[in-house]
Amino acid sequence: MTIGIGLLGLGTVGAGVAAILASPEGRHPLVAELELKRVAVRDLSRTRPLQLAAELLTTSPEAVIDDPAVEIVVEVMGGLEPARSLILRAIAAGKPVVTANKAVIARYGEEIAAAAAARGVYVLIEAAVGGGIPIIEPLKQSLGGNRIQRVSGIINGTTNYILSRMADEGAAYADVLADAQRLGYAEADPAADVQGGDAADKIAILAGLAYGGPVPRAGIATEGIDRLDARDVAYAAQLGFVVKLVATAERLGSGAPAPGEPIPLDVRVHPTLLPKQHPLAGVHGVNNAILVEGDPVGQVMFYGPGAGAGPTASAVVADILNIAGIRQVGGSEAGLDPLLAASSWRQCELVDGSTSRHRNYVRLHTRDEAGVIGRIGSCFGAAGVSIQSIVQFEAREAEGETEADVEGGATDRAATRAGAKAEIVVITHEVQESHFRQALAAIENLSDVTKVAACLRTL
Amino acid sequence: MTIGIGLLGLGTVGAGVAAILASPEGRHPLVAELELKRVAVRDLSRTRPLQLAAELLTTSPEAVIDDPAVEIVVEVMGGLEPARSLILRAIAAGKPVVTANKAVIARYGEEIAAAAAARGVYVLIEAAVGGGIPIIEPLKQSLGGNRIQRVSGIINGTTNYILSRMADEGAAYADVLADAQRLGYAEADPAADVQGGDAADKIAILAGLAYGGPVPRAGIATEGIDRLDARDVAYAAQLGFVVKLVATAERLGSGAPAPGEPIPLDVRVHPTLLPKQHPLAGVHGVNNAILVEGDPVGQVMFYGPGAGAGPTASAVVADILNIAGIRQVGGSEAGLDPLLAASSWRQCELVDGSTSRHRNYVRLHTRDEAGVIGRIGSCFGAAGVSIQSIVQFEAREAEGETEADVEGGATDRAATRAGAKAEIVVITHEVQESHFRQALAAIENLSDVTKVAACLRTL
Repeated sequence: MTIGIGLLGLGTVGAGVAAILASPEGRHPLVAELELKRVAVRDLSRTRPLQLAAELLTTSPEAVIDDPAVEIVVEVMGGLEPARSLILRAIAAGKPVVTANKAVIARYGEEIAAAAAARGVYVLIEAAVGGGIPIIEPLKQSLGGNRIQRVSGIINGTTNYILSRMADEGAAYADVLADAQRLGYAEADPAADVQGGDAADKIAILAGLAYGGPVPRAGIATEGIDRLDARDVAYAAQLGFVVKLVATAERLGSGAPAPGEPIPLDVRVHPTLLPKQHPLAGVHGVNNAILVEGDPVGQVMFYGPGAGAGPTASAVVADILNIAGIRQVGGSEAGLDPLLAASSWRQCELVDGSTSRHRNYVRLHTRDEAGVIGRIGSCFGAAGVSIQSIVQFEAREAEGETEADVEGGATDRAATRAGAKAEIVVITHEVQESHFRQALAAIENLSDVTKVAACLRTL
Repeated sequence: MTIGIGLLGLGTVGAGVAAILASPEGRHPLVAELELKRVAVRDLSRTRPLQLAAELLTTSPEAVIDDPAVEIVVEVMGGLEPARSLILRAIAAGKPVVTANKAVIARYGEEIAAAAAARGVYVLIEAAVGGGIPIIEPLKQSLGGNRIQRVSGIINGTTNYILSRMADEGAAYADVLADAQRLGYAEADPAADVQGGDAADKIAILAGLAYGGPVPRAGIATEGIDRLDARDVAYAAQLGFVVKLVATAERLGSGAPAPGEPIPLDVRVHPTLLPKQHPLAGVHGVNNAILVEGDPVGQVMFYGPGAGAGPTASAVVADILNIAGIRQVGGSEAGLDPLLAASSWRQCELVDGSTSRHRNYVRLHTRDEAGVIGRIGSCFGAAGVSIQSIVQFEAREAEGETEADVEGGATDRAATRAGAKAEIVVITHEVQESHFRQALAAIENLSDVTKVAACLRTL
């Protein structure tokens, strides 16, 4: 039995998929039953490393979808449009879709899932998150017995590469980014990666699967690494932490969710301090990892290459195989496997996270005066925030601050070092976010605190 | 639609499964459709933490299998018999089976798979390897597009716990084992764990799935941690390595396997040195991790709790859900999904591994004589084995050796320190196993080498 495959796009991922289909030996025998029938490309005249018969190629993606020989449509062209419309067209034609397009799924996943459910076809998205790492299928099929408490991950390889080098070399963000662009690890326009948007797309998808309901992409609090100071990476290291861009979806509350009620989720993307022994802390370079915490499974982690032609093609082919395999169960008249179809079964509600609990890293610029640590400590204490460590790093020169920031204090030790400043780093114990914010507001009002220079969540 | 579940065994895993089925809220909605119909226990009168209706319990596993209300049979009793016979009985009755029984699957997997294929039912085994870690399903369903080069893992939690403590505390094997037994991390009879048999069971299963053909369990070279010297753990740490009990299945040769030919595999279990930055090196305590290397995916790793009631129950319920989900596709007359059924499609052949390539750690006892390092180095050089490092550790007292081991050498520096010995540790570069063996044989014949005290493979 041959199954006809149509490809929309023949970039690096599309070419990787075509290469697997063209060399089935040594792979699962089902790969040999997949046959590439039609491929939509932008430019027919372009020479390509992989030789494909000229009659397979077309510049019309619609022609691929409408070709009766194409039974599964694989969308690897990227971008929002025409990708979204083409996916919907394939669904309307009753053809299952495999896509690596995280941007479309994060924004139009609900519309696409509804169309797929109505038409009774699968839309599989293993390649949309985590490159070659099997994470979508395990979330849908292997962890269904669990109540998921948290999904957190390093799911953007570009930023992890930059952060790894900042940590290893003590280099500044801008320098590493420029180098990463030169090496091809970062795009010419790096905004979607470094500002956290790509990771937000992916955590929206993971949360939707983990919690069984669509997560509004626009509501995800997102902060990138583009304003991260190398100083914080270095101080974190001295205190036993690494800084990673972590995307998290966490359920607030515990126990069984109330039936019929929306499940409250705190979903966010930002630079985060991880203790060096944390499972995600050892994820270096362009690798990705996703940590899933559930009851009763505990912590499981999925690790591997988060991008690249080969790994992403591996994930796309996994989805194609899944559709081909299940087709042998019941033919075209069959129902959908509810695990594979991943329909949503409840409402998710994004909440502001002020009741979430975590540790915090704060870097303060203060005047180098006796008693300042005590006053800072008192502000935390008054808000019920207990402190794990408070460290004064070497007095430092002002960076980007006017001299006006430094005032008064002419009668004590500081007076003998006019303009001297201290840098104080506080790591709190795990506290409720709202209490921490309250303490921070009080600290900002202290006369000898000139600036809250950095504030990072800490797992 | 309710699906009737029959449990064979109500130990910690069985009770964990029953607890999930009894509290479906917040889990995948399919869990609510699973209903526990019959449970086989050893002793009806025993009090249990989980209250089950008395009419569910029976002492007859056959009665569970034969109960018409039972549609899926879950075997969590463990042991070889009667587990094997009961699994076969369920298959013969046309009922799909979920089992956590690695010992049965490693030994009788071929017989069971053949019976299941003939009868057209699934036998799913997610819980048999890696506890709660989704690894069986990803291998079967998500990595099918790959040519698998190597599967390696830390898949025995007891030994990893012992090794982690030996490394952290510098403690001796026997002391940590005794403590682990007291804490319940090791069995009263620890043989299956510490001698590597449990890990060999599991790697046989993983290799069978990764390479698509049964792997003869009895042919797996197996060495445990029970003769591991704390000294080697400590020296390895000084040289930048950790010692782990690693189970490996590696394909010899590269590229596409020759069609119709058996695929040559080197499958083994033994203490192994891992560089500290290796993905498996950070797996501590009772956790497990499995690293899969394939083309084109690269390296992907699956990490989590390798044992325990909750994690193992999570894996069992995953399998039950898979069967329940696919049942909705095509009813009872449907065919099998070839990915989920995991039929074998080729022959695997265990080879002796003399052509495999890896690094090696060797600890030698030598006389403390000038020139001994040169002579050892020459033996390696003559066999074409290049050395990464050769380090002489402090001269040490004999441990368990008779004085007769120390002879001659009365004319030079050593003569002034009669009985003094040196301990030399060599780490080779990656070499072919046969060349390394040849060098080692020559070294054993050197008159100033008194003993090859330890020899460990190194990744």
